[in-house]
Amino acid sequence: MKYRIESDSLGEKQIPANAYYGIQTARALDNFPITGEKPHPELIRSIAIIKKVAAKANAEIGLLDKSISLAIRKSAREMEQGLWNNQIVVDTIQGGAGTSLNMNVNEVVANRAIEILKSSNVTVSPNSHVNMSQSTNDVIPTAVHLTLLKLAKDLGTGLNTLHKQLVIKEEEFESVIKMGRTHLQDAIPIRLGQEFGAYACVIRRDIERIEQSVRQLNKISIGATAIGTGLNARIDYREKMMEYLIEETNYPLETAENLVDITQNTDRYTEISSALKILAINLSKIANDLRLLSSGPLTGFNEINLPARQSGSSIMPGKVNPVIPEVINQISFQVIGNDHTISLASEAGQLELNVMGPVIVSNLLKSLTMLTNGVDVLSEFAIKGITANVERCRELVESSVGIVTAINPHVSYEIASKVAKEALVTGQSVRSICIRHGYLTSEELDIILDAKEMTEPGIAGSALLKKAVGIS
Amino acid sequence: MKYRIESDSLGEKQIPANAYYGIQTARALDNFPITGEKPHPELIRSIAIIKKVAAKANAEIGLLDKSISLAIRKSAREMEQGLWNNQIVVDTIQGGAGTSLNMNVNEVVANRAIEILKSSNVTVSPNSHVNMSQSTNDVIPTAVHLTLLKLAKDLGTGLNTLHKQLVIKEEEFESVIKMGRTHLQDAIPIRLGQEFGAYACVIRRDIERIEQSVRQLNKISIGATAIGTGLNARIDYREKMMEYLIEETNYPLETAENLVDITQNTDRYTEISSALKILAINLSKIANDLRLLSSGPLTGFNEINLPARQSGSSIMPGKVNPVIPEVINQISFQVIGNDHTISLASEAGQLELNVMGPVIVSNLLKSLTMLTNGVDVLSEFAIKGITANVERCRELVESSVGIVTAINPHVSYEIASKVAKEALVTGQSVRSICIRHGYLTSEELDIILDAKEMTEPGIAGSALLKKAVGIS
Amino acid sequence: MKYRIESDSLGEKQIPANAYYGIQTARALDNFPITGEKPHPELIRSIAIIKKVAAKANAEIGLLDKSISLAIRKSAREMEQGLWNNQIVVDTIQGGAGTSLNMNVNEVVANRAIEILKSSNVTVSPNSHVNMSQSTNDVIPTAVHLTLLKLAKDLGTGLNTLHKQLVIKEEEFESVIKMGRTHLQDAIPIRLGQEFGAYACVIRRDIERIEQSVRQLNKISIGATAIGTGLNARIDYREKMMEYLIEETNYPLETAENLVDITQNTDRYTEISSALKILAINLSKIANDLRLLSSGPLTGFNEINLPARQSGSSIMPGKVNPVIPEVINQISFQVIGNDHTISLASEAGQLELNVMGPVIVSNLLKSLTMLTNGVDVLSEFAIKGITANVERCRELVESSVGIVTAINPHVSYEIASKVAKEALVTGQSVRSICIRHGYLTSEELDIILDAKEMTEPGIAGSALLKKAVGIS
Amino acid sequence: MKYRIESDSLGEKQIPANAYYGIQTARALDNFPITGEKPHPELIRSIAIIKKVAAKANAEIGLLDKSISLAIRKSAREMEQGLWNNQIVVDTIQGGAGTSLNMNVNEVVANRAIEILKSSNVTVSPNSHVNMSQSTNDVIPTAVHLTLLKLAKDLGTGLNTLHKQLVIKEEEFESVIKMGRTHLQDAIPIRLGQEFGAYACVIRRDIERIEQSVRQLNKISIGATAIGTGLNARIDYREKMMEYLIEETNYPLETAENLVDITQNTDRYTEISSALKILAINLSKIANDLRLLSSGPLTGFNEINLPARQSGSSIMPGKVNPVIPEVINQISFQVIGNDHTISLASEAGQLELNVMGPVIVSNLLKSLTMLTNGVDVLSEFAIKGITANVERCRELVESSVGIVTAINPHVSYEIASKVAKEALVTGQSVRSICIRHGYLTSEELDIILDAKEMTEPGIAGSALLKKAVGIS
Repeated sequence: MKYRIESDSLGEKQIPANAYYGIQTARALDNFPITGEKPHPELIRSIAIIKKVAAKANAEIGLLDKSISLAIRKSAREMEQGLWNNQIVVDTIQGGAGTSLNMNVNEVVANRAIEILKSSNVTVSPNSHVNMSQSTNDVIPTAVHLTLLKLAKDLGTGLNTLHKQLVIKEEEFESVIKMGRTHLQDAIPIRLGQEFGAYACVIRRDIERIEQSVRQLNKISIGATAIGTGLNARIDYREKMMEYLIEETNYPLETAENLVDITQNTDRYTEISSALKILAINLSKIANDLRLLSSGPLTGFNEINLPARQSGSSIMPGKVNPVIPEVINQISFQVIGNDHTISLASEAGQLELNVMGPVIVSNLLKSLTMLTNGVDVLSEFAIKGITANVERCRELVESSVGIVTAINPHVSYEIASKVAKEALVTGQSVRSICIRHGYLTSEELDIILDAKEMTEPGIAGSALLKKAVGIS
Repeated sequence: MKYRIESDSLGEKQIPANAYYGIQTARALDNFPITGEKPHPELIRSIAIIKKVAAKANAEIGLLDKSISLAIRKSAREMEQGLWNNQIVVDTIQGGAGTSLNMNVNEVVANRAIEILKSSNVTVSPNSHVNMSQSTNDVIPTAVHLTLLKLAKDLGTGLNTLHKQLVIKEEEFESVIKMGRTHLQDAIPIRLGQEFGAYACVIRRDIERIEQSVRQLNKISIGATAIGTGLNARIDYREKMMEYLIEETNYPLETAENLVDITQNTDRYTEISSALKILAINLSKIANDLRLLSSGPLTGFNEINLPARQSGSSIMPGKVNPVIPEVINQISFQVIGNDHTISLASEAGQLELNVMGPVIVSNLLKSLTMLTNGVDVLSEFAIKGITANVERCRELVESSVGIVTAINPHVSYEIASKVAKEALVTGQSVRSICIRHGYLTSEELDIILDAKEMTEPGIAGSALLKKAVGIS
Repeated sequence: MKYRIESDSLGEKQIPANAYYGIQTARALDNFPITGEKPHPELIRSIAIIKKVAAKANAEIGLLDKSISLAIRKSAREMEQGLWNNQIVVDTIQGGAGTSLNMNVNEVVANRAIEILKSSNVTVSPNSHVNMSQSTNDVIPTAVHLTLLKLAKDLGTGLNTLHKQLVIKEEEFESVIKMGRTHLQDAIPIRLGQEFGAYACVIRRDIERIEQSVRQLNKISIGATAIGTGLNARIDYREKMMEYLIEETNYPLETAENLVDITQNTDRYTEISSALKILAINLSKIANDLRLLSSGPLTGFNEINLPARQSGSSIMPGKVNPVIPEVINQISFQVIGNDHTISLASEAGQLELNVMGPVIVSNLLKSLTMLTNGVDVLSEFAIKGITANVERCRELVESSVGIVTAINPHVSYEIASKVAKEALVTGQSVRSICIRHGYLTSEELDIILDAKEMTEPGIAGSALLKKAVGIS
Repeated sequence: MKYRIESDSLGEKQIPANAYYGIQTARALDNFPITGEKPHPELIRSIAIIKKVAAKANAEIGLLDKSISLAIRKSAREMEQGLWNNQIVVDTIQGGAGTSLNMNVNEVVANRAIEILKSSNVTVSPNSHVNMSQSTNDVIPTAVHLTLLKLAKDLGTGLNTLHKQLVIKEEEFESVIKMGRTHLQDAIPIRLGQEFGAYACVIRRDIERIEQSVRQLNKISIGATAIGTGLNARIDYREKMMEYLIEETNYPLETAENLVDITQNTDRYTEISSALKILAINLSKIANDLRLLSSGPLTGFNEINLPARQSGSSIMPGKVNPVIPEVINQISFQVIGNDHTISLASEAGQLELNVMGPVIVSNLLKSLTMLTNGVDVLSEFAIKGITANVERCRELVESSVGIVTAINPHVSYEIASKVAKEALVTGQSVRSICIRHGYLTSEELDIILDAKEMTEPGIAGSALLKKAVGIS
């Protein structure tokens, strides 16, 4: 392998001859052989956009030579298009609050710009030119905001599809009457459509929560430089940056009110992560329900059927497992764990900067990506194809004791309890016991024990109530 | 000890003769000797209000005998006033999704109502009368909402005071110039007021986040009964309940859009808990900073002084510790742990109900109470009395190497690096090295190295920049 | 209310006239109105023992006046017996690493000792006498070790009972054949006894894990004083302390190898907490299984019956819920959350001391207590009374498709898959399909499909296998 | 792209013509596009070993045709050597408890075996042949055990090196006297070597904890098949498997006592993860200390120097940050978060199987790998090159007030407090104040205030104590 020699204030170092990155990247490769995972392509793209528009802004305000500016802009545009992703080689988890990532980009952009300019005997400095008016501490957070806005939008699209599928099922199963269960014990009737409606509701709130949580990302810190005081970044630079970034992204970006604050505090990340965690909890609950409702088929609840997606066992023929809900559970557990990591890292911020940014960002991007992928398979491979076992649902309602609740207002809780106990012990129906004891007539029971009626608000057979319940 | 005998469908049981609670409470005492902690008084108060207005509503719609209604209302009003807190004896952590707590209240209210009515030979049933039109699954969540709204308001008041104190310090320390630190390493100048301003900003966002997170609590589920379908609760009952509850509380309550959803999903609790967790993380970061900035006095940063609150050691005379920030850290850790418990319990919801409600509510009420208490002591006993060691702050700025950053735009990052290295090795000042090497003149450095200037946006001495940085 | 005035280096302060505690306790009451929870009685007892034997040791080595020593020992013995618990009033969560708790005890012991000595015009100093040769930083950790050893022993007793109950059920249900479920889907037969045997196994490992984790608590730090260097505690003091503490407690105590280490590192606490967390996870899994297996009765698995412990609903008559497993789930979630708090607090240790001790200890003691209580109710009120629905279990096995697995070795996985599919689609039995297609004879199937046989290792009907499976 | 068609019980599907994997893998690729991460190479290797020896065992006991057995063994040996890693394409997070991974291996091994056998017109079935006598539920856990044993050994090697480096520093800094800090406040003297000694101690315990936690992994479940009952795996097969696996790995493997237990319970994973979490907490505490002790250089503690590893800023010239400790913190946060995910997944086990295995294993392998990498860079790039600022350490001790503690036994805590207060207010030395007030003579103070002496157990100047402290 061929090398070139570069040097910095720590001394000389061999760099692979054909690498576009330079000595700071090479030192980071030595220092951080941690996970083997490389930065998210979308994050690289966002940093490239910033480098591109910064070169423009710096030239416009007269700080940067025009030809260098043009070369940097061309080079950064190539990176934005993904042409140099293979040159961004630092580990996602790194010490130094993102300096290694920022310098990796600076070095590649600079060396590629030199190449672009090569006839003209010009040098482009990663720090003095590519990073001009910038610090890692405003560039990386700004890039992270742009990336999160993009990925959150993708997740939002997926969640809207999921919501739509759930609403379709709510309507499809509108009239499938089944027993509701609380504590996994027989309760009172409900419609399968109502259950899917409840899932749709909570997902709708998740969509809003995530939207709400990303709203603050439109406030960015470009121009804040090292600690938010803005040293070495002129106001006119910052104004141009805002203008160009809005142009590039179409997001309603604005400069954060207090740049010292945004440089040191990471609550915007914990807030998004919390919204993702809540989504994860809700998805996991839905997945658990789907697995319960489709359990069996013989030895379980067997009220719904999930689409068969793959053979379920290497040894048990014919077995089909609820693999999509299961992967949703696992994604959820991962997202909840990631949120924990993000919380720990967020709490570890000290004074002017939270240096744990890399692990925060790495987890946040992974959680978003994983959830987006998971939500898509959940919609497409599970919810969409669910069918109901209508007959089984009906039979369970008809033979249930739980419907005794409907007679409470007519005979008192105390008498209804006796009926329930007798039904459970003897196996006789609630209806027949009521009639036998003369509590209610057959005609009254036709009205009171109407299963459909029981799934709507009100006292079944309210008109039959003669008078206020009083002295017994 | 004297006993009376009560019986239910499981059989007979001895109850202390003078207890207002009954057999279901007694069974819960046997079953749940878990933490020894009793329900939060504010939660008892909220349940009592519901019982009171339910008795009124049920009478109004003709379901409940007027005299019984009046007795229940009087009895519940006494409970609302805290007179029977000692009769609410079930453990905060209990199986059964709150049925034991609801029945404890039902039994006490019923027995006290019987006492009130005692001349008239009337029985008041905990289930048929006090719990009429209700289920644990709508009463307890509704009561929890009312309680959370109250406690969150208290926390909000405390946070506003904290915010105000931080703003006062921001202004007081407006001109205290000091070194900023990133990575705990010397960075560039900042003003102490800017640091407190950043703390104020993040607390302001916490206030808004918490307000946002409790907003949904105004949507309540009274009338949803067992599984949200509303069985046994008439629409006119629900309407009256909403009217009376708004009257009692002055909250802008409304019936939740989907009662099946709200009965089974607990995302409103995880959302508040997440907001509290984020507050905890931010408070912990501030506490960590305060401990760092006041560290020493001799062997530490020693830039600020916290008020001395108590002797710091049983063995080391004269030692004073930052006990208030330390207790804030611990509260924060507890709140983060509680959030974890709440997440686990929320994920464990199944089908029509989350039966883990008691542990969710217990942790949520504790976190709110603890944070309110902690925020108050932080404001009053720590922030308010902080003083700055102005002289020390100034000296550290003046002898620092970090100010070299300001010369970057004038001489390039590369030359500034050489200056920095020489300053660190030789101990000479940045200023003298620049002059000796002829990089900048004494007059230029007067402008460029002005510390106050460095704490504001822009390039210090921007007017001195002759031309765009180009070919080197 | 009457007051007396005390003063310390921070100034004067009113103390309730009849309080045994003094000014440092009073300051702590002002500073830490956090949770309202008071120190665990067992922890108070442990500190009292240390104070008692320290007074003896200090007198023996000639540092402490004999009469003062005797008075302190009498006073501390009273505290050990619980007589002064009401005077130990500081909050469990407090800044200052336990100094407030230690001083609360020192002050109460000193003032009571003064009372004891009152005829003799003697003063007893909380610091110079009661705390002689001690620091909060060795006294509190030593006391915590003694307390944890005691509480872990109680938990061990409870777990052994639980284990025994599970083994009894393993034997009782030895011959109850039922369908096993993986992924909540029908799998292959198992015996109910085997399921309870698996629960017993994991609880047995938990017992060993907890025993292993507390073993290191026998290494204590008394004599380490403030930072582990032992300043102000003589070696002969430490030797006598070890001797007397072993006498008092009968634990095999020894001085930790490195006192600087034990003063700053809290891994012994995270280790115990981890063991408790693993127990919690395992208990929660068992609780989940019990709730699943007893679900229904009509609409669920209904293979076992849990003892009815209380009415399950304020609205649904006759409902009985699995309240004991539910409370176990909740305890588990709390313990897992507490472990999280302990981890956070443990990570926050800095340099010579972890000042977050109070929140660590508070959570650890609560987790232990809660688990001990929970394990007792689980054994006594749930496991002990479980019965099996033998008939239902048998029917599910007989009509299941999962038994098709047993024919794999005889006909290949591929053919068995076809049989399974046909059985699921047509509802015909595996047996009849095999015979119809001529895959196996009725006699062969009698052997191969023996359900009991399937619950034991080996290939059912292995003798029928004619030759190695080869080219098809 | 060219395809071939394969079919299974769910229907037909296109497979890339040149893929060694088959239809079940292809379905998994459709179902689980989740993280993009592929199985750990060491895990693939472990599964390959099992496939290899299973083919041998099955032939030996007469179940599998010899020539097929030989072809499978050759094919699996190639996979063991890493030749087919690019054919193991399923996502690390997958529904189905590992069936997709097991089948991916089965299919590749089978198709490669067919290729090996190609002249002989033979078919090798992934299920009937490669997976003979096996289930995913015993193969994957067994492979995971082998993998964890390997990776834990690597981590152990790294930790032993770290421990050795810490002990070297303990000795190197044996005589560097410095101020100890508690609560970040000046305490009493300690030696820098003692601090590194404490780090060494806790890492030693971590080594033991991890060793202890992996010990149980030697108990494996091969032969347990689907639910631990061993259906379709003969005893003689299991015996041969144990023999061959021990031969292959040299681990002291044994069959777990209860195979039903080991198939459903995952406490062995939570136990290892807990041990890793405790290590992470301890490493993070050490990293925090290193960052504090090296903070500054001007505005911080500045007692030690970490080796400079890379430029610290893209904007601040000359800045060098503690990047290695920072990456250790981040690794630790990730490992703690991963432990959380593992706990959640472990709790989610139901009945005969924990189907969340994939997310458990993925996190466990990542935590191990990351910690091993992190520990290596910590030893090599941070600890090894640490130097002490001896002079600065000495100066801080000499000018400190904290040394006043040593005079306690000679003058009482109360008088020492007055001395301390006077010293803090006036800036005079403890020594001069004591002399001026006549508390102690200059000669006595020479003995009592010897800094080295203060870092060892005992009362400095114990011989000077005239009599027991008594009535004042």
